[in-house]
Amino acid sequence: MLKGVVLENINSPEDLRKLPISDLSELALELRDYIIDTLSTHPGHLASSLGTVELCVALHYVFNTPDDKIVFDVGHQAYAHKILTGRRDVFPTIRTYGGISGFPRMDESPYDAFGTGHSSTSISAALGMATASKLQGNTNRQHIAVIGDGSMTGGEAFEALNNAGVSKSNILVVLNDNGISIDKAVGGLSRYLVKITTSEQYNKIKESVWRRTGGDKRQSWGRNFFSKSLAALKSSLLDGANLFESLGFRYFGPVDGHDTQQLVEVLSQLKQLNGPKLLHIVTTKGKGLKAAENNPVTYHAPGRFDVETGKQLKSSSTNQPLKYQDVFGHTIIELARKNDKIVGITPAMPTGCSLNMMMECMPDRAFDVGIAEQHAVTFAAGLAAQGMIPFCNIYSSFMQRAYDQVIHDVALQRLHVVMCLDRAGIVGEDGSTHHGVFDIAAFRPVPNLTICAPMDEHELRDMMFTAQTDECGPIMIRYPRGASVHAEWENEMHALEIGKGRCLAEGERVAILSIGHIGNEAAKAVAALAEKDIRIGHYDMRFVKPLDTGILDHVAQHYAHVVTVEDGCLEGGFGSAVLEYYQQRRASEPSFVEPVVTRLGIPDKFIRHGSVEQLHSDCGIDCQSILSLLNTILS
Amino acid sequence: MLKGVVLENINSPEDLRKLPISDLSELALELRDYIIDTLSTHPGHLASSLGTVELCVALHYVFNTPDDKIVFDVGHQAYAHKILTGRRDVFPTIRTYGGISGFPRMDESPYDAFGTGHSSTSISAALGMATASKLQGNTNRQHIAVIGDGSMTGGEAFEALNNAGVSKSNILVVLNDNGISIDKAVGGLSRYLVKITTSEQYNKIKESVWRRTGGDKRQSWGRNFFSKSLAALKSSLLDGANLFESLGFRYFGPVDGHDTQQLVEVLSQLKQLNGPKLLHIVTTKGKGLKAAENNPVTYHAPGRFDVETGKQLKSSSTNQPLKYQDVFGHTIIELARKNDKIVGITPAMPTGCSLNMMMECMPDRAFDVGIAEQHAVTFAAGLAAQGMIPFCNIYSSFMQRAYDQVIHDVALQRLHVVMCLDRAGIVGEDGSTHHGVFDIAAFRPVPNLTICAPMDEHELRDMMFTAQTDECGPIMIRYPRGASVHAEWENEMHALEIGKGRCLAEGERVAILSIGHIGNEAAKAVAALAEKDIRIGHYDMRFVKPLDTGILDHVAQHYAHVVTVEDGCLEGGFGSAVLEYYQQRRASEPSFVEPVVTRLGIPDKFIRHGSVEQLHSDCGIDCQSILSLLNTILS
Repeated sequence: MLKGVVLENINSPEDLRKLPISDLSELALELRDYIIDTLSTHPGHLASSLGTVELCVALHYVFNTPDDKIVFDVGHQAYAHKILTGRRDVFPTIRTYGGISGFPRMDESPYDAFGTGHSSTSISAALGMATASKLQGNTNRQHIAVIGDGSMTGGEAFEALNNAGVSKSNILVVLNDNGISIDKAVGGLSRYLVKITTSEQYNKIKESVWRRTGGDKRQSWGRNFFSKSLAALKSSLLDGANLFESLGFRYFGPVDGHDTQQLVEVLSQLKQLNGPKLLHIVTTKGKGLKAAENNPVTYHAPGRFDVETGKQLKSSSTNQPLKYQDVFGHTIIELARKNDKIVGITPAMPTGCSLNMMMECMPDRAFDVGIAEQHAVTFAAGLAAQGMIPFCNIYSSFMQRAYDQVIHDVALQRLHVVMCLDRAGIVGEDGSTHHGVFDIAAFRPVPNLTICAPMDEHELRDMMFTAQTDECGPIMIRYPRGASVHAEWENEMHALEIGKGRCLAEGERVAILSIGHIGNEAAKAVAALAEKDIRIGHYDMRFVKPLDTGILDHVAQHYAHVVTVEDGCLEGGFGSAVLEYYQQRRASEPSFVEPVVTRLGIPDKFIRHGSVEQLHSDCGIDCQSILSLLNTILS
Repeated sequence: MLKGVVLENINSPEDLRKLPISDLSELALELRDYIIDTLSTHPGHLASSLGTVELCVALHYVFNTPDDKIVFDVGHQAYAHKILTGRRDVFPTIRTYGGISGFPRMDESPYDAFGTGHSSTSISAALGMATASKLQGNTNRQHIAVIGDGSMTGGEAFEALNNAGVSKSNILVVLNDNGISIDKAVGGLSRYLVKITTSEQYNKIKESVWRRTGGDKRQSWGRNFFSKSLAALKSSLLDGANLFESLGFRYFGPVDGHDTQQLVEVLSQLKQLNGPKLLHIVTTKGKGLKAAENNPVTYHAPGRFDVETGKQLKSSSTNQPLKYQDVFGHTIIELARKNDKIVGITPAMPTGCSLNMMMECMPDRAFDVGIAEQHAVTFAAGLAAQGMIPFCNIYSSFMQRAYDQVIHDVALQRLHVVMCLDRAGIVGEDGSTHHGVFDIAAFRPVPNLTICAPMDEHELRDMMFTAQTDECGPIMIRYPRGASVHAEWENEMHALEIGKGRCLAEGERVAILSIGHIGNEAAKAVAALAEKDIRIGHYDMRFVKPLDTGILDHVAQHYAHVVTVEDGCLEGGFGSAVLEYYQQRRASEPSFVEPVVTRLGIPDKFIRHGSVEQLHSDCGIDCQSILSLLNTILS
């Protein structure tokens, strides 16, 4: 990999801090080249990290890390930080099995002050650290939260601003404003930031105040000047208090987030100021790679690409089945064309869940509500209370953010909200923060909910069809990241009977009960046995709740051993639901003989990053693991 | 009950709308008297509802309910609304078993547009309804969210404002600003609102503009005047945009929320304006009962009281054991005195969880972070990341709001946060939104967590002691609302072995495994059998996670039947953990004979309101139900 002459000598922020300020721009360029070069062949979150190169350089230059604490919100934007903090040479292992994580992790480096992955936590965490420092009598330590304008719309960020604003804590929030999170930022806050950054005053400052003494003279400016310029920044743009000042923060900005020297100057100044303060910087997502600057949504995580042109390289397997997310995207449109009541909702993931298709062709009926899972679910409940049928699409691990709203606003009121949980199960390279492994166990106890998972895209379509019929109440459909199953995704949809599974194979001794897409691994194992003329049973249960007790009764009668397979956590999951049913029968019918049940699923630990296949194998839910378990049982 | 001459003829908002505007003040007085009179003997949420009497009258007078939609945030403040909407005569049944709910419920009345109980959902729901109306071609319908200044600090409210601000939807947010939620409101937003309402301009408007034409002439003012006065309200107070306008709302106020006629006038005007708008009204929590006005925290839900003096009446059982919450309150101080690392955190419930004791004697180390469960947990994680040991006290049902933060910020990073879940299990009169029945099942699948529940206050203290030792990682202690067990709460604390339960009784045939305070019901049943010389086993398991498998093995060896008892949901709960363990042994040891397990707990439905005793009985987890189950098993 290409490493520049400055960068190759930076093994830690201490090395960085020995550089003259005039070298920083060069270092930023080299970092950017290194990131682009590496990610062109080792896919990762490209565009966010390109936007914050200068910021990462300036932060580590000005602040005494790791004693000073930097918390990167979400963490997509922390690649330059990783490279500068001792991980330059292992950077190409990013997001691979056994390699470094794509997100900050406390157990990976002392410079990763707090692990992230989900959005809008950074201000809370930094405030906690600042409060600890104060209690410990450390008045010097600095606590910095770096947060994007998209993440700032998440409710937790506001809760933290509200608390921090009156705290007198030593906290600096750097608002990295690029007008985009993964998709284009939406909402009132975004519009407000645009208003600030397009104001005449801002551009006047940007063009004249900061530039007027020019080039390398800047580092010799005296403190007095900086103070004055800070004051100018603070007061000139806004008549009186702005949104952040309303909450008790001192607001500074906006400043150009790609001018390393200016950032160093401003941050050095802010370091001297006590109390909560917010620095608003403006950056370009994808900066330095034309294709990414022009299309930051596509280049958020573009996969492999050509370094020169930026052109995305096709993956080798072009004949893959359609992704589940695209099947969702096409199918909701198909359903919505026939059913006026259907609307689509996503909290800031339109391209990730493919609701962008509906947003394009039915803009009035598809809503991106911002990074706001809680609001997304209650908003859906409000729509349903007035007779609409909202399909609210949220990644499984992000739905954890709306756990209460699902219970309190949807299920308790039996409102007809269709919750589509994309990225359910192991997601692969994004790792432990993003695996969608808790949903089945977490939502199974919630009364009134129907919970199902398709084994293939035809079932997904049938479940979506079923979900929008008037008889259906609140329902959750979970499906995984990645490719579906068949060459032809577009079956003719029909309604499924709620709470009924299907038999895929009858056999002897052992029956597999699987839920969802992971059932394909079980099916492969069953087929492998069949080739040796060993026939076992296999049922695609379809519904976690209500369970198909007819199948459970049948299986108990005909098989001595049952194996449950799910790509969710074992504690309290689908397999436990099976145990609960059998034990209930046993307790009430003395003559009932319960089969021996072996449950396969995600064990009780956080699963790191790696390929889905590798992680399925580690968890013992890939075809090979299932097969070897079956052989043990059958032997 | 005392019902005034105007009120006794109001059977619906239609009756109300027939009144001349001059009668409204009298109606408000009568409503207030009726609420005070009723609640003096039928305890409920007094102070909030007294503060919004005029608002409820004005809303139903101006808006065409139930076609126009009013969503009351939290719902504590909706008593006058209930009385005006056909529930006047059943009002004394409020919060009692079989009576009307203390909160709005869609299934109770068409005027309850959306059920509430937890805070900060109203704007999301109203926006959903407004969006539905727009899609359905109804441009007349009004959608109103009534939200307190405390609830406005909850992140979901901000997410909704951010989304609504750009929506062009027909939504009116009424910000009911009384400077208090349950405890005194905190944070930057609260300070900001105080700044607005204490401004000279506001008081000038309040005293002169609105009053100058005086008394009953007001209803004859022309529209022109109103428009001018609205404009005055809008522009005079704030130079340029304020916080809400930043987000895209048109801001109006502040106005006196106890001046019915003024409210009617302003609301009538606002009804004519399209798009998102916010009306800021100022009210006095507890208005009309001197004692409540002076002490709204105490009178939030004061129990029975004297109508004349407001004096609270002692409950008949004065010699009750201390409440669990107070044991927590005393114990955290005792521990914090010896351990510098300990701090306390509550999201806006200091009196409810008794952290107010610590806030008084150690103000630097106890934090009320506002209605902000998500932030509370991540803030705690930030403190723990810097070596502190935060005790974060959140009601079980409110912890549902921080589900993701517990997983993502605490457990994944193994941070030493002590999560105390007060109000776990059935809470009684607050009903389905407030029962803390999902916590065990929801958090049991989370890796790295320790989960425990004390059977009495001595165990609570021992668990708190254990939780603050350096060996302990992230831990959750759940305990119920109400009185603990012993006459003497103050045992000498000692560390418990994590994952170990205790034997309370050995016996034959049947063993009870109980978790937490509900184990006292089981103990009573065991004692009742012992009186008849029937000895069964009883184990207080103490820990849900890790389970005491030593006890489980012992019980499997010595008893044919096991009964698990918990005051949490049956799906995936403690009893399921027991099943999982036994089935795992059975699958791996062919010779293992599993006991028959009967699980007692909360069934798979939302439990309504009523006394804790009644609801325990309904769920089959009181002494009598347990006893009759045991008799069946033993017969």
